[in-house]
Amino acid sequence: MDGRQRVIITGIAPRIEEGQYPAKAAIHESIIISANIFGDGHDEVAANVAIRKTGASEWQFIPLKFVINDFWEAVFEPVETGFYEFKIHAWIDHFTTWQKGLEKKFEAGQDIAVELLIGVEMLEIAAEDASDADKASLLSWSSKLRSNDDPESLVTLATSNDVSQLMYKYRDTRLDTISTTSQIEIERQKAAFSTWYELFPRSASKEPNKHGTFLDVVGLLPRIANMGFDVLYLPPIHPIGEKNRKGKNNSLVAEDSEPGSPWAIGNRLGGHKEIHPELGSLEDFKVLIQEAKKLGIELAMDIAYQCAPDHPYVKLHPQWFKWRPDGSVQYAENPPKKYEDILPINFETNDWENLWQELKSVVDYWIEQGVTIFRVDNPHTKAFSFWEWMIKEVRQKRPDIIFLAEAFTRPRLMERLAKAGFNQSYTYFTWRNTKYELEQYINELTKTEQRYYFRPNFWPNTPDILPPLLTYGGENAHILRLLLAATLSSNYGLYGPVYEFGLNTPRQGKEEYIDNEKYEIKHWDWGQYTRIKEIITRVNRIRKQNSALHTTWNINLAESTNDQIICYAKADNKTNNALIMAANLDLFNTQGAYVKIPIHQLGINTSEPYTVHDLLSGSKYSWHGEWNYVELNPYEMPAHIFRVEQQ
Amino acid sequence: MDGRQRVIITGIAPRIEEGQYPAKAAIHESIIISANIFGDGHDEVAANVAIRKTGASEWQFIPLKFVINDFWEAVFEPVETGFYEFKIHAWIDHFTTWQKGLEKKFEAGQDIAVELLIGVEMLEIAAEDASDADKASLLSWSSKLRSNDDPESLVTLATSNDVSQLMYKYRDTRLDTISTTSQIEIERQKAAFSTWYELFPRSASKEPNKHGTFLDVVGLLPRIANMGFDVLYLPPIHPIGEKNRKGKNNSLVAEDSEPGSPWAIGNRLGGHKEIHPELGSLEDFKVLIQEAKKLGIELAMDIAYQCAPDHPYVKLHPQWFKWRPDGSVQYAENPPKKYEDILPINFETNDWENLWQELKSVVDYWIEQGVTIFRVDNPHTKAFSFWEWMIKEVRQKRPDIIFLAEAFTRPRLMERLAKAGFNQSYTYFTWRNTKYELEQYINELTKTEQRYYFRPNFWPNTPDILPPLLTYGGENAHILRLLLAATLSSNYGLYGPVYEFGLNTPRQGKEEYIDNEKYEIKHWDWGQYTRIKEIITRVNRIRKQNSALHTTWNINLAESTNDQIICYAKADNKTNNALIMAANLDLFNTQGAYVKIPIHQLGINTSEPYTVHDLLSGSKYSWHGEWNYVELNPYEMPAHIFRVEQQ
Repeated sequence: MDGRQRVIITGIAPRIEEGQYPAKAAIHESIIISANIFGDGHDEVAANVAIRKTGASEWQFIPLKFVINDFWEAVFEPVETGFYEFKIHAWIDHFTTWQKGLEKKFEAGQDIAVELLIGVEMLEIAAEDASDADKASLLSWSSKLRSNDDPESLVTLATSNDVSQLMYKYRDTRLDTISTTSQIEIERQKAAFSTWYELFPRSASKEPNKHGTFLDVVGLLPRIANMGFDVLYLPPIHPIGEKNRKGKNNSLVAEDSEPGSPWAIGNRLGGHKEIHPELGSLEDFKVLIQEAKKLGIELAMDIAYQCAPDHPYVKLHPQWFKWRPDGSVQYAENPPKKYEDILPINFETNDWENLWQELKSVVDYWIEQGVTIFRVDNPHTKAFSFWEWMIKEVRQKRPDIIFLAEAFTRPRLMERLAKAGFNQSYTYFTWRNTKYELEQYINELTKTEQRYYFRPNFWPNTPDILPPLLTYGGENAHILRLLLAATLSSNYGLYGPVYEFGLNTPRQGKEEYIDNEKYEIKHWDWGQYTRIKEIITRVNRIRKQNSALHTTWNINLAESTNDQIICYAKADNKTNNALIMAANLDLFNTQGAYVKIPIHQLGINTSEPYTVHDLLSGSKYSWHGEWNYVELNPYEMPAHIFRVEQQ
Repeated sequence: MDGRQRVIITGIAPRIEEGQYPAKAAIHESIIISANIFGDGHDEVAANVAIRKTGASEWQFIPLKFVINDFWEAVFEPVETGFYEFKIHAWIDHFTTWQKGLEKKFEAGQDIAVELLIGVEMLEIAAEDASDADKASLLSWSSKLRSNDDPESLVTLATSNDVSQLMYKYRDTRLDTISTTSQIEIERQKAAFSTWYELFPRSASKEPNKHGTFLDVVGLLPRIANMGFDVLYLPPIHPIGEKNRKGKNNSLVAEDSEPGSPWAIGNRLGGHKEIHPELGSLEDFKVLIQEAKKLGIELAMDIAYQCAPDHPYVKLHPQWFKWRPDGSVQYAENPPKKYEDILPINFETNDWENLWQELKSVVDYWIEQGVTIFRVDNPHTKAFSFWEWMIKEVRQKRPDIIFLAEAFTRPRLMERLAKAGFNQSYTYFTWRNTKYELEQYINELTKTEQRYYFRPNFWPNTPDILPPLLTYGGENAHILRLLLAATLSSNYGLYGPVYEFGLNTPRQGKEEYIDNEKYEIKHWDWGQYTRIKEIITRVNRIRKQNSALHTTWNINLAESTNDQIICYAKADNKTNNALIMAANLDLFNTQGAYVKIPIHQLGINTSEPYTVHDLLSGSKYSWHGEWNYVELNPYEMPAHIFRVEQQ
């Protein structure tokens, strides 16, 4: 320690878990790096952010700017994906202190002769380390300051930009205070903006009584692309356990003809690196990936690290499981409930290093086959340290790989998975229905530290979750929840085709679909027209065309005079794209409200009227100032998506 | 790293600046240590706090208890002052997981034979490391579990306290997750509860035209003790600079007869370790300390690390000052203002290590003479790293020494000084007048992280600050501000006797006292009766007698229906002492309000009426439930201090 370092740096942001984890941002996002920076006394302070790709030899320096109350900010505009590290350098800026004092003393009519000599000293010290050209400039200025020129011209010289810049260049850095290192991870744009569709490929056949295949899914790609989805997520495609296989509606015993749950992975034909033969070959799978890509769709694969009792791992690596005193393998349980079709992996095995390598090799294998996105099943039931290691290992080589955490669990676990590396996370959106709930949750996600590490992906339904709202609210509810998911969060997804078909019958007493596709093969009328499908298509087109919807972080909640009307605005200032959303949360009655538009954030001129153009209905309204009126009939359309069009 | 460590520990509190600084607590305060603790999956988790005096060899373990949402707490009750360090140990509790599963399975009527055998294995593994007696118990239990006794009795045995305790004792600690280390500093009670009185000893003489002495101050001690003060703070007692000495009302030139500001320290007679001869001898000073102690009063000394131009340091250590090109020493300035009677010390001197040692030796010297409390002048104009080092060095040997930071500056600097070691801090209370301002500030001080490191000391006035409110509000304002300071903060002080005399004439256009005692010797009528003095005396007696006022952290703001009435409650549950304060902030008009008493925090029975006994007026009222009415005439008494007396 050098006791002469007088500047303090605290409260650095973004900084996750004391610098242990990176803050996340996508490549087109500007990252604000900030800190409290101050010294003792009245001297001027200055500071830089030093930032580099982790492991690079050269630092890039970005000056921090004073905002208010010792709070300083800099903006980092990443041009590459990958891991970055940054530190803050801060110092007492003696030359600027001198310049400002000189000006004030001169303005107050004080004698500045001695002051000028202090400047001469500083210039001459700087000149000692300067290049020849710079040395000449510095010395010429210092001899000017020694001269008997009129004081005003000397003050002007001393405080000129040229002098300031050279004195900054040759400043004494020996007493810089340098902060500890924080991390940032820059991800590709898809991590921030993606539109997911989930379907069971085994239900993709257009022929009755046939097991669907990858090639059947290829046939559905134009439909999916046309609806505006750009990620196609398939449940596990591996051989399905035959031992303790579950039947229709989660029954404990399956008929011979029943296909079982794709999440009970592995049988005599193989495990996590094999394909269930009835879906097709590895070649077919690669064809699906390629054909999807042509239509702008990326395939997302399910990763469920668990085994059916007949998974090859059980025999090959018995040490990765817990064994019971009766010689059986411990199945999954939440006493007194038993899940005997699933064996959990024992992450406390002494052979954990080999286990980790094998689990990672599953991901590596599918990356080699062309998979770029993984939706990870129940990551909160596997060791956090494994995810941290595995995701970092993968992304250090392949920063384009995206991991979505499918955890619907307690808040601290959800947060930790995101910190540990997951690029997107399922959320509580599925159960947030009232205006209060939605606003609280949006603020938590976007206005707290979570914004730097937890990237939400909003799903109105999943194969596991049929929320009561969709059951009692029917088509209106499906349309409302779709509109909310798609405009609140830049990442959203749904499980189809049940969603666009509006299917909503629950299993008795459960918040689950009856005759769940998890346990049986369906035959859908894929060509069926539904109003929900039409609106999905339109909303996804609006999302693509309006860059304000390409990030989740730009949301501004708007006051509304009715608790049934939620209103929020999003703007992309780079493209002047400003949207105002208003939704009626009452599924059955028309509701109206005055809403207070955050016109300043939207760049709206307060003195002129402006047009809001509903991209759903095509209607245009002329609005003025902050408070304006909206009214929504849920049987017509439960929401507006207004684009602001200045006149 | 061991990948088998499955428990995560985050959000540890108290933890200041990532563990760099200690959280502070006084010896009688219970400290709640908390963290978010969780594992993957459904297994039970358990955790301990390991805590010890820093440097001790043995750790004390305190179990953490689950509160809600993966948040755990433990209470640490310190029995000694000094520096402590703590870590959190957390682990997957396999035995408890097994016990709970066993109970649930048994209750669900499942066969538990294999489950019991799993318990047998765990008991037998624990027995391997156990003492002979414990081994016998563990093995006898395991053979019981192997027996054919009726399952219910075996479940009862397996889940018994005896079994749980021994299994905890011999638990496998190898996969514990252990957090990084955090710090706590335990201070003596005076740091948390103190009542300060400031006077200028040179004004202590009862004879006109005489310079007051330490022995004159001895004569005033009964008066000070009688008013209820327990800290007597004296401005600097050192020789006062003669060069550039300031005169009456801060004039630039002093008459020969003028005494100068005591903060312009040092002349040909010596510096910071000498006593201004007219105050008396070192022996007299020690007599003052001793006599004060007999009356329960501790002496607080001023530490102002700055020098008059004729301070001996200037000749002895010229390298500790900045020199100007004209051969003069740089004086203090805030351009264009100059303070030529003061030379700041240059903390960037290359000789900083000797400088630090010398400055510390000043404190060490006065500690040797018996001083235990230092009020540090303008610490924010000296290097933060110096304070951090000096205070820690001193307090590691003498944890009873208290440092009060006299910084009235920007928030981040105030906070940093407290983190760096100051035990008490002056605050913005002096300028917080409205209910909104007071409530915001109280919440910031007591309900945020500040509560762990920043211990406020509320002053309604100082020799430097005469707030406008005291000027225009007269006696009413003096009484109100005293009552607020003394009941909002357990540490408070005032500058007398001007305060109790109600003197409040400002220097033209300034928020300062005219004819300021900083620049001249006063002759006070110390025996004068004033109503303010009477109320100070009564309030300080109430403070002593009511332990609810011995800490600042127990405050609960109460709603009130009138913005002129502030209401708050404080309770000490250990002694069942509960107080309710209500104050009228309107200095000139009677105001009334319904106030919502936090009866649950005060331990008040909701179904019964209760008596509130005004300790200022002696009046008693019978109240009921939460909402009750108060009315206050500022010309009678601007506040109630109610003690709650259950019937």
